[in-house]
Amino acid sequence: MVKEHVKNALKEDIGFIDITTDVLTKNENLKLNLISKDDGIICGLEVFEIVFKELSQDVQIKFFFNDGDKIKKGDKVAELEGNASALLIGERTALNYIQRMSGIATLTNKYQQVLDKYGVKITDTRKTTPCFRLFEKYAVMTGGAIPHRFNLSDCVMIKDNHIAYAGSIKKAVETVRKHISHTHKIEVECETIEQVKEALDSKADIIMLDNMPSEIMKEAVELINKNAITEASGNVTYERLEEIAQTGVDVISTSAIVACAKTFDLSIKHV
Amino acid sequence: MVKEHVKNALKEDIGFIDITTDVLTKNENLKLNLISKDDGIICGLEVFEIVFKELSQDVQIKFFFNDGDKIKKGDKVAELEGNASALLIGERTALNYIQRMSGIATLTNKYQQVLDKYGVKITDTRKTTPCFRLFEKYAVMTGGAIPHRFNLSDCVMIKDNHIAYAGSIKKAVETVRKHISHTHKIEVECETIEQVKEALDSKADIIMLDNMPSEIMKEAVELINKNAITEASGNVTYERLEEIAQTGVDVISTSAIVACAKTFDLSIKHV
Amino acid sequence: MVKEHVKNALKEDIGFIDITTDVLTKNENLKLNLISKDDGIICGLEVFEIVFKELSQDVQIKFFFNDGDKIKKGDKVAELEGNASALLIGERTALNYIQRMSGIATLTNKYQQVLDKYGVKITDTRKTTPCFRLFEKYAVMTGGAIPHRFNLSDCVMIKDNHIAYAGSIKKAVETVRKHISHTHKIEVECETIEQVKEALDSKADIIMLDNMPSEIMKEAVELINKNAITEASGNVTYERLEEIAQTGVDVISTSAIVACAKTFDLSIKHV
Amino acid sequence: MVKEHVKNALKEDIGFIDITTDVLTKNENLKLNLISKDDGIICGLEVFEIVFKELSQDVQIKFFFNDGDKIKKGDKVAELEGNASALLIGERTALNYIQRMSGIATLTNKYQQVLDKYGVKITDTRKTTPCFRLFEKYAVMTGGAIPHRFNLSDCVMIKDNHIAYAGSIKKAVETVRKHISHTHKIEVECETIEQVKEALDSKADIIMLDNMPSEIMKEAVELINKNAITEASGNVTYERLEEIAQTGVDVISTSAIVACAKTFDLSIKHV
Amino acid sequence: MVKEHVKNALKEDIGFIDITTDVLTKNENLKLNLISKDDGIICGLEVFEIVFKELSQDVQIKFFFNDGDKIKKGDKVAELEGNASALLIGERTALNYIQRMSGIATLTNKYQQVLDKYGVKITDTRKTTPCFRLFEKYAVMTGGAIPHRFNLSDCVMIKDNHIAYAGSIKKAVETVRKHISHTHKIEVECETIEQVKEALDSKADIIMLDNMPSEIMKEAVELINKNAITEASGNVTYERLEEIAQTGVDVISTSAIVACAKTFDLSIKHV
Amino acid sequence: MVKEHVKNALKEDIGFIDITTDVLTKNENLKLNLISKDDGIICGLEVFEIVFKELSQDVQIKFFFNDGDKIKKGDKVAELEGNASALLIGERTALNYIQRMSGIATLTNKYQQVLDKYGVKITDTRKTTPCFRLFEKYAVMTGGAIPHRFNLSDCVMIKDNHIAYAGSIKKAVETVRKHISHTHKIEVECETIEQVKEALDSKADIIMLDNMPSEIMKEAVELINKNAITEASGNVTYERLEEIAQTGVDVISTSAIVACAKTFDLSIKHV
Repeated sequence: MVKEHVKNALKEDIGFIDITTDVLTKNENLKLNLISKDDGIICGLEVFEIVFKELSQDVQIKFFFNDGDKIKKGDKVAELEGNASALLIGERTALNYIQRMSGIATLTNKYQQVLDKYGVKITDTRKTTPCFRLFEKYAVMTGGAIPHRFNLSDCVMIKDNHIAYAGSIKKAVETVRKHISHTHKIEVECETIEQVKEALDSKADIIMLDNMPSEIMKEAVELINKNAITEASGNVTYERLEEIAQTGVDVISTSAIVACAKTFDLSIKHV
Repeated sequence: MVKEHVKNALKEDIGFIDITTDVLTKNENLKLNLISKDDGIICGLEVFEIVFKELSQDVQIKFFFNDGDKIKKGDKVAELEGNASALLIGERTALNYIQRMSGIATLTNKYQQVLDKYGVKITDTRKTTPCFRLFEKYAVMTGGAIPHRFNLSDCVMIKDNHIAYAGSIKKAVETVRKHISHTHKIEVECETIEQVKEALDSKADIIMLDNMPSEIMKEAVELINKNAITEASGNVTYERLEEIAQTGVDVISTSAIVACAKTFDLSIKHV
Repeated sequence: MVKEHVKNALKEDIGFIDITTDVLTKNENLKLNLISKDDGIICGLEVFEIVFKELSQDVQIKFFFNDGDKIKKGDKVAELEGNASALLIGERTALNYIQRMSGIATLTNKYQQVLDKYGVKITDTRKTTPCFRLFEKYAVMTGGAIPHRFNLSDCVMIKDNHIAYAGSIKKAVETVRKHISHTHKIEVECETIEQVKEALDSKADIIMLDNMPSEIMKEAVELINKNAITEASGNVTYERLEEIAQTGVDVISTSAIVACAKTFDLSIKHV
Repeated sequence: MVKEHVKNALKEDIGFIDITTDVLTKNENLKLNLISKDDGIICGLEVFEIVFKELSQDVQIKFFFNDGDKIKKGDKVAELEGNASALLIGERTALNYIQRMSGIATLTNKYQQVLDKYGVKITDTRKTTPCFRLFEKYAVMTGGAIPHRFNLSDCVMIKDNHIAYAGSIKKAVETVRKHISHTHKIEVECETIEQVKEALDSKADIIMLDNMPSEIMKEAVELINKNAITEASGNVTYERLEEIAQTGVDVISTSAIVACAKTFDLSIKHV
Repeated sequence: MVKEHVKNALKEDIGFIDITTDVLTKNENLKLNLISKDDGIICGLEVFEIVFKELSQDVQIKFFFNDGDKIKKGDKVAELEGNASALLIGERTALNYIQRMSGIATLTNKYQQVLDKYGVKITDTRKTTPCFRLFEKYAVMTGGAIPHRFNLSDCVMIKDNHIAYAGSIKKAVETVRKHISHTHKIEVECETIEQVKEALDSKADIIMLDNMPSEIMKEAVELINKNAITEASGNVTYERLEEIAQTGVDVISTSAIVACAKTFDLSIKHV
Repeated sequence: MVKEHVKNALKEDIGFIDITTDVLTKNENLKLNLISKDDGIICGLEVFEIVFKELSQDVQIKFFFNDGDKIKKGDKVAELEGNASALLIGERTALNYIQRMSGIATLTNKYQQVLDKYGVKITDTRKTTPCFRLFEKYAVMTGGAIPHRFNLSDCVMIKDNHIAYAGSIKKAVETVRKHISHTHKIEVECETIEQVKEALDSKADIIMLDNMPSEIMKEAVELINKNAITEASGNVTYERLEEIAQTGVDVISTSAIVACAKTFDLSIKHV
């Protein structure tokens, strides 16, 4: 699936033909270095390589780091050698992947580090760039967090409108339980202690504590008492992370680690 | 091409099947409102609609704004009505498109407004999310900027490595000119006044003034004297925009309007 | 995704062009009936309709049953009316879908009915026809069973080779737990009581009792005592279903409901 | 085309990512054996190999049999060696192909063997699994039968509704003959001796004797007297095969060799 | 399949976006006429319509001719009305289809007319534009000729190299006959009377008389005496058509009707 | 993109399977020569190779010419060696590419040679075979001409209908200029001296002199006086080329170099 994505990304960036490189590049070899211009977590080295291999099987890349490693400004991340035309054409697309992915991994890691001492995990959401989720979720994992569900089919998430349809949390959970795979979990979105009680009563696997003030969240966590996984959601900021962790929740979900990530600065220099 | 992208985005978000909606949604109609929770420029309404239409031709959407309009927190952007299952399944993907696009349009607009009084245009780069460029470039245009080249085939960009290959800027431009379409422009990346002179001499259509201090840039602009389009690039920050504009360049290019854009907050509320 | 599958199936069946229909069919309307020639559970009516709609938007189909309904030999399942050429070209492909799907739904239903009184659910496996799993899993659900995981990404399944890699069941489960989403379950394949104890100890969500004699399985179920979901697997025959159910397991998985399903006999008759 | 099918099948089976293998498999080599647990005709070894090669070019497979060979329970069909992750991820999909294909080849072979002494050939129909026909037809050929037409464009088949349209068999055949390629044959479906006479008169290349009692079929065959190929169809069971062959027909077509084939039992064992 | 081709053709012609139309076209209706500027056979009206419908479902087209009709310079072939942007963007692609197709239909018709009085049919070859064969073969049929085989799978063609492999024509035909569908014909390429005899002896369905002088061809036709279809091939020119027809062959194949067809002049005029 | 095109072309030519080669070809090596049977410019050698490599990585091809070289009747263009089946199956498709491409390169070259002494360039149009433009444009470049815009997004072309929409040429150019990339040129189609003046006045980058008599064209060229690129268009024939060149235009565009190109005769001979 990665190869297919890379093919489309190259098509997007090349358009018809790369006229500049086509006319100006002789059929010779080139040596390039991938240099970091930022501090953080490197992510996306495999897809970086696939971009160039797609253009020419002969490109050789030697990496000095692995995905998830901390890199510093000035670090040589990789050496590239091969057909000049393939290297020049692939450069922008390859960077576009790892700059976005390393940016997300770096921000995620910053969030996760605050939580490590509490044994709490940060997780993402389905708010991702259309057709780029695989790379964004992978970056979240590389940054040390755990991913939330990949898509609509690998976990049931019962929200207010579903509850409205079913009549009550209990009815919703029961209806779902009868039809879904025993391999799937059921998560219920709760905004009040009342709803938490009902979700607990219906044996939901995961209870989302949505937009709750910290004290209410704490009450909910105690009420649940490890009989379900607890997930804090809504109004999650970097500053509030510790406060939320101290309520005792298991997981904190936020779209910020993907949506607010800055592009990580990396550049390809000619040796 | 938009429809195809939407199909893939829906596949990505649905996975196998939307188990929650499948089990819990009855076959009835639903009314929803798209509400802004941010101030800025709305962008992506067409693709927003395509997402739902792809799931069910019967979904009706009434928009109260057009792409490029300024919207405020609390504004009702659209009313949606139709098959409950289609609306619930499409919600996240549709929002993912317009939240990203409106974020870019809003940031671009902020940059462009600084430049309007100087008659200078902001423009983007090829640093875009792989397989999402069409939407990012469109958002840049919606924000009031002009796009840079779409891909490697619609403008020649001669960079240092190309110059090294050809021997000199002049030779590079001449070689290219002989082979490319008369409908394509040639842009030359220059870092020094010396290079600018050579580019000017070789009749480049666009001269990029790359990473130049403002005073050198000004000198270059005067030297060029409207005999080529001038494009400032490198080290472009929001704070430096006016300073750069005052050098007299025609266009300022920066990846920031895409790479640093925040997700625009919009939500779909049940009526 | 269904539409795309149907397009490919039609391409497969048409090849270049349908020469017979092209030459012999005048541009007129035709009325056809879909008649059952078997007793069982009907399944696939939606995709049946999509096949004809793909060929001509004008084809109208009126169904007299819904997916999951019991039908009898001689029942009129649907009336079709529309462009003769679309109806004649689509006939074979449309039947190929519902005959296979109804066959699976019917066999699954036969298995499930034996288990209903025990509150035990039958479930399928990943042994499906390549590129046809969506339709086979849907038929399993239509037949009254629950699906097992859709693919490798929506549930962790720890098998002997994974255990060998990790060193022990406990280590395998712990390693996995640290990295996966809190929305995913962990299933452990056990062949002995010893393994069951270890799986239980490591808090696996689902314990597969693989190829166990009924008395051992019963012992395992009692040991687990509802602290994990129990899934019987291996050597599952229709004849053994009740015996297995009586061990008290929650779920019985078997590839037979898909692999051994007979094509359900349906035909399209000219009115 | 096979590679494309395999890519889609792997996407189907993997979903987002194989979380179990991803987390638990170290980057090492593995040796596996493909062992038969059934007696019959092996079929699909090429696609079996393509599955693993698609995941990793480094996987090496040594086959001890060729497609079409008779294999016995316990036979080692192949040795696999390579990247553990590729082998574990590809296992199920690779087996899904050859188990279905070998099942069809085995059943087809059983049918064909009854007919060999009569010089009669068994053949299949267009009743195949949507998007899987290539593999099913190949298995039919591997089992020793001949395939019927691949799709609607490589042979004209005139059925009752076409005849109704044209007015008579003769008119239908004449109309078709004028427009189709001289490289295509015309087959006419006949249910009565009267129709056979008309088909013969119109110089059909193949005459299908559809749902005829054996004595009528014999009469038809004698009437045709080798002036057209004769194909028996309808109500074909394994038990009736010899009786049908004794009518002197050239070919017997039945969907049973595909639709009633059992999955052939093969398993991949760790060395 | 036609829709898919049209989508790709539009993507090819649009590239990123149609900047001219995007900026300059207001959202209004336009009326256009499709006018012939040539004399000949019109072909491709269906795909012409699909191009515009793909861009906007609202475009209405009224045709005054059908595929295969003779049209004259100045004839109004169709009236188009609808969204200006869709009409302007689709214009070139729509014309590209029908200009090429009408050109082929016209030339084919010219060839066929010479042969009509002899009851001989002209046919094409596999020398077609890659990925455009469907349209070229359809145009050949529209021009009054019959198509040769569509692709490598709908007729066996035994050439010199195959004969070399098998040892003799007879062995080649026999080997093939045993394995192929009874619905497929076998054609043998012959260059000498000796080969014709052997092909006849092996009961080939079609005998190609390749590059034979007319007198030898005549001898071959007499020898074959209607026991196989005869196809003249090689060195076929418009001028030689009658001479070849007089040898008594059934079919004359030539790539010229596709390869030498001129683009048919049609234009879209604003009303 | 070329690989994808080749895959589709092979699918088109193979259909289901190549029955002849499948049955008759043993698994051995073959040596073939690609021989020219025409005089002209060879073009398409890379895609020629890709066709065979797609079928078997083992095929080795040694070329004796490069794209753009002049070749003569009888020249050995390449030696092919490899798997017999891959060579026989790929032969027709590979030839279909280079015969069409070399035909275009040859005709283009003939046109360009007339113009070389005037320093004028021939260029093509968007009248190309749907889904084959990449290959046709490449052939035009190989023949020594320059390509016109690749698609609707890499140059603005203002035609009569756009002018009508905008009110005047000046308004059209100004509106466009405000919205498009500074990297794109604007071309204006002019039929009269009046329009040329207006286009010149609005600073169009390219002025198309459409369907002008030579003397008027000359007047226009003098009026423009190198302040815009001049492109002659309409009624361009090989005979008129010099006359047009003598008006002093920069570029002459014509669809003839693509639309009227003859298939170049090349054949693959067995060694």
